[in-house]
Amino acid sequence: MKISARNTLKGKVVSVEKGATTAHVKIEVADGTVITASITNESVDSLGLTVGGQAYAVVKASDVMIAVD
Amino acid sequence: MKISARNTLKGKVVSVEKGATTAHVKIEVADGTVITASITNESVDSLGLTVGGQAYAVVKASDVMIAVD
Amino acid sequence: MKISARNTLKGKVVSVEKGATTAHVKIEVADGTVITASITNESVDSLGLTVGGQAYAVVKASDVMIAVD
Amino acid sequence: MKISARNTLKGKVVSVEKGATTAHVKIEVADGTVITASITNESVDSLGLTVGGQAYAVVKASDVMIAVD
Amino acid sequence: MKISARNTLKGKVVSVEKGATTAHVKIEVADGTVITASITNESVDSLGLTVGGQAYAVVKASDVMIAVD
Amino acid sequence: MKISARNTLKGKVVSVEKGATTAHVKIEVADGTVITASITNESVDSLGLTVGGQAYAVVKASDVMIAVD
Repeated sequence: MKISARNTLKGKVVSVEKGATTAHVKIEVADGTVITASITNESVDSLGLTVGGQAYAVVKASDVMIAVD
Repeated sequence: MKISARNTLKGKVVSVEKGATTAHVKIEVADGTVITASITNESVDSLGLTVGGQAYAVVKASDVMIAVD
Repeated sequence: MKISARNTLKGKVVSVEKGATTAHVKIEVADGTVITASITNESVDSLGLTVGGQAYAVVKASDVMIAVD
Repeated sequence: MKISARNTLKGKVVSVEKGATTAHVKIEVADGTVITASITNESVDSLGLTVGGQAYAVVKASDVMIAVD
Repeated sequence: MKISARNTLKGKVVSVEKGATTAHVKIEVADGTVITASITNESVDSLGLTVGGQAYAVVKASDVMIAVD
Repeated sequence: MKISARNTLKGKVVSVEKGATTAHVKIEVADGTVITASITNESVDSLGLTVGGQAYAVVKASDVMIAVD
């Protein structure tokens, strides 16, 4: 499946923390750069996400903000 | 200002394309890794974004999805 | 690629309207049920979206609201 | 109240799972097509959502992605 | 229609700027406090939004970030 | 840091409710007007949010919908 979301960053799962319904998954996409995703516990199971596995962080362009110092 | 959004990636603006109301800004956050943001033209002006300038891509954790091959 | 987004609705592209930077794509996912997506023109080209083609509307669970009468 | 969100799918609540703060509500919008929404527990109570009740899944166009095989 | 989105701010439309596909609508929700919404041109027409009219800004809780100085 | 998000409402934290992974923070931005944000517990700690403190609700324009009666 090819998706319209413009941003896909390949990385390694470094943390999976399940809550009651919502999980936080951290993916290291470059040395020292970690992306945090808040997804459903259901998705964690469905994708079989585990620490050490390869995964992608995917973000729609309209969900990206820009900041300057 | 310190923001709750969990993801902030520092980079360099490589493209600013204004549309009628919506602009697309691309930030290179690592060699070969470019993030596309869809923001208002108004924000481009307000932040003074220009190609070559330093900027951050900012994303709320609940807007990040995870994918696997 | 398998994605964490919980909602994928299969349908047929019934309209592609490109703007200056942002396109509106409509997908009929059931008889009389049309989903509108606002995506980048770039994505329309990248996915090769054209009227009559098969496509999916994909939505993250945290972007779905519920309403009652 | 009439809302700008372009997508409203009528259906029947098939599941309400409350977490500590966040609930997952599933709505069957067509035979075999179930939409998952991640909303606050507070909203579940405020709308009086219960399994079997009629409800709508509402999504803003800018939160819809498109995918192709 | 009653919606799960937790945030509804009543105000007066102070600006409607249509682009090629995307419009920016500004609503004054308190003296000097103006909210900007990026919605489809189609929604502007469908809701009949015009400067001076009464309207609400509606935001899902998961789309609100918090910042501190 | 200056951010592209068009909407920043200054207020006072009136409630912080942590869940298993996701917290709900309420900010009173005007007399009787309370904004609810759903953010990570991690952000609550990182920003040091406590009831009575000053904070801002920040929302990207593309996450604001408009409604009319």
